[in-house]
Amino acid sequence: MKDFRVYNFNPGPATLPLEVLKDAQSELLNFDGTGMSIMEISHRSAPYERVHNQTKADILSLMGLGDDYEVLFIQGGASLQFAMIPMNFATVERKGAYVLSGTFSSNAYKEAATLGVGTIAASSKEGGFRHVPTQDELSIDPNAAYLHVCYNNTIYGTEFHYIPEVDVPLIADMSSDMLSRPIDFKKFDFMYAGVQKNLGPAGVVIVVAKKKMIESSRADLPTMLKYETFLKKNSLYNTPPSWSIYMVGKVVRWIIDQGGLSAMAERNARKAKILYDAIDQSDGFYVGHAEPSSRSFMNVTFRLPTENLEKKFAAEAAENNLIGVKGHRSVGGMRASIYNAMPIEGAEALADFMNRFRQNN
Amino acid sequence: MKDFRVYNFNPGPATLPLEVLKDAQSELLNFDGTGMSIMEISHRSAPYERVHNQTKADILSLMGLGDDYEVLFIQGGASLQFAMIPMNFATVERKGAYVLSGTFSSNAYKEAATLGVGTIAASSKEGGFRHVPTQDELSIDPNAAYLHVCYNNTIYGTEFHYIPEVDVPLIADMSSDMLSRPIDFKKFDFMYAGVQKNLGPAGVVIVVAKKKMIESSRADLPTMLKYETFLKKNSLYNTPPSWSIYMVGKVVRWIIDQGGLSAMAERNARKAKILYDAIDQSDGFYVGHAEPSSRSFMNVTFRLPTENLEKKFAAEAAENNLIGVKGHRSVGGMRASIYNAMPIEGAEALADFMNRFRQNN
Repeated sequence: MKDFRVYNFNPGPATLPLEVLKDAQSELLNFDGTGMSIMEISHRSAPYERVHNQTKADILSLMGLGDDYEVLFIQGGASLQFAMIPMNFATVERKGAYVLSGTFSSNAYKEAATLGVGTIAASSKEGGFRHVPTQDELSIDPNAAYLHVCYNNTIYGTEFHYIPEVDVPLIADMSSDMLSRPIDFKKFDFMYAGVQKNLGPAGVVIVVAKKKMIESSRADLPTMLKYETFLKKNSLYNTPPSWSIYMVGKVVRWIIDQGGLSAMAERNARKAKILYDAIDQSDGFYVGHAEPSSRSFMNVTFRLPTENLEKKFAAEAAENNLIGVKGHRSVGGMRASIYNAMPIEGAEALADFMNRFRQNN
Repeated sequence: MKDFRVYNFNPGPATLPLEVLKDAQSELLNFDGTGMSIMEISHRSAPYERVHNQTKADILSLMGLGDDYEVLFIQGGASLQFAMIPMNFATVERKGAYVLSGTFSSNAYKEAATLGVGTIAASSKEGGFRHVPTQDELSIDPNAAYLHVCYNNTIYGTEFHYIPEVDVPLIADMSSDMLSRPIDFKKFDFMYAGVQKNLGPAGVVIVVAKKKMIESSRADLPTMLKYETFLKKNSLYNTPPSWSIYMVGKVVRWIIDQGGLSAMAERNARKAKILYDAIDQSDGFYVGHAEPSSRSFMNVTFRLPTENLEKKFAAEAAENNLIGVKGHRSVGGMRASIYNAMPIEGAEALADFMNRFRQNN
């Protein structure tokens, strides 16, 4: 019972690599021979600063980025970024342009709009966010401060499979797929991710941005709402969320040990294929929400013939230790989140269950 | 070596109760029989919500407050509160009034001043913040939106030993002494604390405020910068820093198990007396920074005859597993932080070391 573990398909907070959890557990009372927990160590001390700086370096290295980019650690979740981005970069004259591809990108737009500095570049709301707007659908004011996209849409199970070609700075919310596969990250000026889906425990947002972009931000904002504070102070202006950063460091190191982003991509594609095959080969019993061309590698969304069967599916899955498969209320049905840390065996177990459930119902 | 532990006098992040760390360690892979770590559990699930709501209830209960008060969990540290408080409550016509009693209260004032909505009600900067301004020193505009004080000044080692009598709402930064002793918390309209000094690991701020005060906040702010968002959504508008809240819950439960705030106060007073006695009975070898009437129960600051001796003191203390006694650069000298979780044996070990060091130097 003590070591009992389930397959956890929750969308976030989400499953973490078991090796990482065991490692953190083993050193919880005495980190690095200090006689203190990592949670008790001063953020101005050498042992903490090593963790902090190594995590930053590992992230840049995995993304293939040089020192023209900077990694920032900021609290408040992606939701605070939705406000900070327009506060720092947009003006009434040069608004931020937003692609609406789901709930979170719409929330990001709303914050900019509330500040009077947001416009819509494209939307796939009509039809229920079943696809990611294509390059052809984008209509961007050449004077826009930036184009903002949400690269993977957790709730709808869609994902960008192209990088928008734009003449303005490109900003991406990668909360649910950062470091899940190799992308040409150099094409982005500003990327960010709440870590609790793919990279660690809730409590920190990773920003990876061009230093020049950060330096172009507004100066007359409160200290903690200016990106420049985080750039100038190495994200140590005040006490950082050190536990979350430490855990992200371990997850990032685990990704490197697994073979880096190409290994993650292969593994994630295999898991996704297992589940999409279970949908596509179900003779219409399972119906995917996303259009196939926009399907996410991270969140697999599907409906069953009736809402009663959907309830039964979630309940019986849980009895089989397949946890968190209920979809978001705005889509209904099922959602299996299969981030980096979900083992292939988890996807196989869920596909097996899907097949059994279909035969029995 | 595996269980090696030191006495950790760091000002924050700071020492945590060993029982709490061991408890968290034992359930790190499988919380409450879920087969998941607390870090992996959905913030919309019953097991997490129990933690979240019990922590809130325990805090109110320890403070003797009823349901006219609300507990909020907010990210960004006290430094973000320094901006959110004036953004939510102050205007150019009704400014926030600030008592400057140290570094953090001055930083809080600066954020309000940057927004054009701050005034100074008193300052003890002259003379090096050696005392907390008295009631007689306060000069408060009756039209002020609030009076803001920092109840314990971590860097200077001073603490309020009275509650200001005011006709405007009273706001207190209690980052370094919340729940360290019984206070008539009902006299405050809004209290807050970054938890990493006295209550848990870095990553969350606890706000305890009158619901009416929160409801009076501005409505036209970004979602994550409005207190009302946190009130209306039970601090679950977006993913909360669940690990930090979970750990705060365990620390709060530990305080209750120890006998509550009066037990904490007795224990903290004993530790403080042990160290202040070592200063006062040193024939002038150790000189306290704070005026005796303003001495903090949480941070004991003192100087030695020379800076060289101060360096030697810090180095030899570390050799004796007494960690983190170097003072802040703005005061110099030494600082021993003796929050709730520091055992009496730790204060005794430091006092013994102080006596030996004095005899040998």
